[in-house]
Amino acid sequence: MRIKILIRLKSQILEPQGKVIEQALNNLGFNEFNNIRQGKLIELDLPDNLSKEEKGQKIDSACKKLLVNDIIEEYEVLG
Amino acid sequence: MRIKILIRLKSQILEPQGKVIEQALNNLGFNEFNNIRQGKLIELDLPDNLSKEEKGQKIDSACKKLLVNDIIEEYEVLG
Repeated sequence: MRIKILIRLKSQILEPQGKVIEQALNNLGFNEFNNIRQGKLIELDLPDNLSKEEKGQKIDSACKKLLVNDIIEEYEVLG
Repeated sequence: MRIKILIRLKSQILEPQGKVIEQALNNLGFNEFNNIRQGKLIELDLPDNLSKEEKGQKIDSACKKLLVNDIIEEYEVLG
């Protein structure tokens, strides 16, 4: 099963890359796009024979141990 | 309305960063995680008064003109 992990900086942390994208989009005439923030997407396969709980535990553990810097980042799991 | 744009390299393109993550996770004992690929997440606000079609058009246009390199990347819009 394909899992998506979305990792973003916490909202109170400045994210300059998003500001640059926003400015570039504004310059191209896209004025409706606001509050743009860039983050990371990690996609991976997990075996189908794991239960939903096991999957959740493994993903949380991997995020805490390697993928996510808990001090400045937060994550969301999809799929 | 908050929109998520997931941008990933096309599957036939090598994505070394994902391989590094996979190796690091394996070294930590996470052997169930396979075929890891890292991509980009762009989140933005669009005005609620736009119709679903208008939103789709604007996002597609912004992706084609700035956000996505169509030659090597593909994108998916959520929310």
